[in-house]
Amino acid sequence: MFEKVKVDENEYVRVPRDELFRVVKDVFMAMNVPEEDAEIVAENLVMADLRGVESHGVQRLKRYVDGIKAGGVKINPNIKVVKESPVYAVLDGDEALGQVVAYRAMRMAIEKAKKNGIGIVGVKNSNHYGIAGYYAYKMAKEGLVGMSLTTSRPLVAPTGAMEKFVGTNPIALGAPVEGEEPFLLDMATSVVPSGKIEVYRRKDKPVPEGWGISTENGEIITDPHVILSPKGTILPLGGLGELHGGHKGYGLGVLVDILSGVLMGATWSRHVGGTSDKHSDVGHFFMAIDPGAFGDAEEFKKNMKKMKEELHNAKKHPNFERIWVHGEKGHLTAQTRLEIGIPIYRKVFNEINEIAKEVGVEPLKE
Amino acid sequence: MFEKVKVDENEYVRVPRDELFRVVKDVFMAMNVPEEDAEIVAENLVMADLRGVESHGVQRLKRYVDGIKAGGVKINPNIKVVKESPVYAVLDGDEALGQVVAYRAMRMAIEKAKKNGIGIVGVKNSNHYGIAGYYAYKMAKEGLVGMSLTTSRPLVAPTGAMEKFVGTNPIALGAPVEGEEPFLLDMATSVVPSGKIEVYRRKDKPVPEGWGISTENGEIITDPHVILSPKGTILPLGGLGELHGGHKGYGLGVLVDILSGVLMGATWSRHVGGTSDKHSDVGHFFMAIDPGAFGDAEEFKKNMKKMKEELHNAKKHPNFERIWVHGEKGHLTAQTRLEIGIPIYRKVFNEINEIAKEVGVEPLKE
Repeated sequence: MFEKVKVDENEYVRVPRDELFRVVKDVFMAMNVPEEDAEIVAENLVMADLRGVESHGVQRLKRYVDGIKAGGVKINPNIKVVKESPVYAVLDGDEALGQVVAYRAMRMAIEKAKKNGIGIVGVKNSNHYGIAGYYAYKMAKEGLVGMSLTTSRPLVAPTGAMEKFVGTNPIALGAPVEGEEPFLLDMATSVVPSGKIEVYRRKDKPVPEGWGISTENGEIITDPHVILSPKGTILPLGGLGELHGGHKGYGLGVLVDILSGVLMGATWSRHVGGTSDKHSDVGHFFMAIDPGAFGDAEEFKKNMKKMKEELHNAKKHPNFERIWVHGEKGHLTAQTRLEIGIPIYRKVFNEINEIAKEVGVEPLKE
Repeated sequence: MFEKVKVDENEYVRVPRDELFRVVKDVFMAMNVPEEDAEIVAENLVMADLRGVESHGVQRLKRYVDGIKAGGVKINPNIKVVKESPVYAVLDGDEALGQVVAYRAMRMAIEKAKKNGIGIVGVKNSNHYGIAGYYAYKMAKEGLVGMSLTTSRPLVAPTGAMEKFVGTNPIALGAPVEGEEPFLLDMATSVVPSGKIEVYRRKDKPVPEGWGISTENGEIITDPHVILSPKGTILPLGGLGELHGGHKGYGLGVLVDILSGVLMGATWSRHVGGTSDKHSDVGHFFMAIDPGAFGDAEEFKKNMKKMKEELHNAKKHPNFERIWVHGEKGHLTAQTRLEIGIPIYRKVFNEINEIAKEVGVEPLKE
């Protein structure tokens, strides 16, 4: 959510936010997903595109549809609460659409936090849940500090290894700010998310050195096609080895595997499957904390605002236009896109319309 | 805790662990710190040295003693529980030795987690609490997943800035492993902890490019003297700018400021003081989670062991001797040092003995 978003208008078609939401929701409904669930998934995917995280947006629609078709994703899952107390719970997602069970878990965390100060709710047997920040943002909008973690399929080499092993396992944290949009950190624990490398692959351009290595000899490689193939792997945040802290990014990836995978009875790292696998067993971790339980809720929001202002006014580096605080770029991007439409890559636009026609839904208009 | 520990025997004096513990404890007791508290601080500082994190070990004794002398640290603090529920609490540390109030908060988190599945306990008005990993390790030894965060004095430039602004704000996570020492991640959210740069400064050697920048023009600098002076600043994990994820390290630093600072009613980033400041107002965050509440505790430990084994057996990179899992290097270092003694830098050794003599405590023998 932090990268500068540059759009080449020739490559994209601008689609109004509500129209994009409509088509995605209708596609899921046409596949017999209940309306309420279809809305959650559509909101989640469209929010990613709205905020400039297209890798997690509607370009994934085909994978979701394929997952449902292949039977790896259940549209009428029997979601069960397997553990519960006033402050925590674990849900068995029964291979639901990740967003559907994740949304329910997040709502439970919110309710528990509002009643009892804290809510930690985990999920096992889930699928890809979209952007981690979606849930952290929602919790922050409810006045809570919200954390959202998820396991994901193996794409990153642990320090000392040269194999796709740990997921890009994101960490998201949202917090309310007085009179402003929430603080929102949403980061892969890899040096870059795979979606960033996919952009280079699409443009057939080499990625910067330090993003990926060969799985054959461990050397730094810059060909995005190879990094995303079995012959390459992404590096953890901090890069290769320990010199610039690669062991920290690797450790954060394992932290996410422990909290959202092992702790919740879900699997971890290389065992996590993709959307179209028969049993991906993705795990999630949601934590909501009420600042009003730990102190004064208004004071918290005021201090968050003060902290943001101070960061903005830190001594600026001459090579940067300004000091951004997490969540701001995504919000500004969303504001613009709500006005002028969301740029959808033409190939994705066509793909969505093919799916729409296939399931008998009104396609997007250009 | 992850770096390879190399010891030049000429520069150091080997001291048996128990002897080092004895002198540190006795110094604090001679300064009228109650015995129980003196033991906690001594155990914490000596654990750092034992595990190879000398920057957070007994070399800080002088700063602690100076803090007590200057009145910035109270030896008989009136620690108050300002908020409490069965699953959370906030303590006002009344400017206690950080370890003393942190230990109490950690014990409360452990008890709450054992009774109710989760315990989150925060602290405000505290001081430097030593290594974050000490608390995470203790929680893991009790069979819990333990997280330990703390604010710290400003040393790191946010992305886009060139100023010491955010702390090196560590994140530590411990988790029990069947039949083995706990998993233990303990990392500064900066590219390196300041202690690592202090080692280069002592040896008068340039640090690798990418650790620090000038606060005058923002350029990458390698002189450890300058980086640690007001003319330089450390970079966040991920380095300068966003290309290799510097905004993520910066975001993690802010995450720690939010959870252990703002949420707990403590201050944050540039307002956090050092040990000898009149009012440093350091904040801590401890979270203990009982895996037995979320699932099966034995299963959790088994799966942690399995995960570790799998990581060890990942496809090895030819440039690395092995794949380490977090906590292993520190534990191996501790095992060796328990046998042959802890190497204490000669200057630190002499400093400790000067303090010992000053307060009337039996000094270390060479």
